[in-house]
Amino acid sequence: MHRSRLAGFIIDCKTDDLERAAQFWSAALGYELRAKHEEASPLYRCLQSEQLGLHIEVQDVKHDSRVHLDIESDDIDAEAQRLEALGARRIEKVHTWIVMEAPTGQRFCIVRPQNKNFAATANEWK
Amino acid sequence: MHRSRLAGFIIDCKTDDLERAAQFWSAALGYELRAKHEEASPLYRCLQSEQLGLHIEVQDVKHDSRVHLDIESDDIDAEAQRLEALGARRIEKVHTWIVMEAPTGQRFCIVRPQNKNFAATANEWK
Repeated sequence: MHRSRLAGFIIDCKTDDLERAAQFWSAALGYELRAKHEEASPLYRCLQSEQLGLHIEVQDVKHDSRVHLDIESDDIDAEAQRLEALGARRIEKVHTWIVMEAPTGQRFCIVRPQNKNFAATANEWK
Repeated sequence: MHRSRLAGFIIDCKTDDLERAAQFWSAALGYELRAKHEEASPLYRCLQSEQLGLHIEVQDVKHDSRVHLDIESDDIDAEAQRLEALGARRIEKVHTWIVMEAPTGQRFCIVRPQNKNFAATANEWK
């Protein structure tokens, strides 16, 4: 048995000014930015979207700008296998997460639990 | 004064089988599909994501597959002006919504209120 749920989404921005990109998305969506020193990496800025119960980040990327979904799971490999059985393709492992591709072509990631209410709200897969 | 908030996201799928695409995303994210007869258009299937408080749809599109964000507002034109002032570009009006482009290149839409708790949770802009 393992669990997973939609963690949130990452706003991938091909930009030379992550701070400015993060400020746009913060103002557009109406969520404040978390303090910079809380970020683990200079490539990310997180939005304070806890009230929504979703994890939203603005990321500095080299590929074209897009939005990608994250699925959080307490067993990343079991979740990758579940999604492969549904038709997704495993692209690569990066640090602690796995990049996947949906049958319809969108890239998405399987990540460790991000939301505080993960245990109470995740789906159980047997 | 007008109000807006993140409505949710649309999973745009370049596919000749919307039903199959919708079933993948339903199973991947763990939200059931709404009954087909509830849909206004054959180009969309909605996920039952009310518990999350976000509107999620799978859409049949002609352009490449992607994920785009929707912002819901009780005054779509005022919201477009607010977002233009932040640096977004107005692309086109389609039916009741406006397609916008962020300074970082992602397309997104401004739509009429989708979520039942819109009034209680939206941001007020003066």
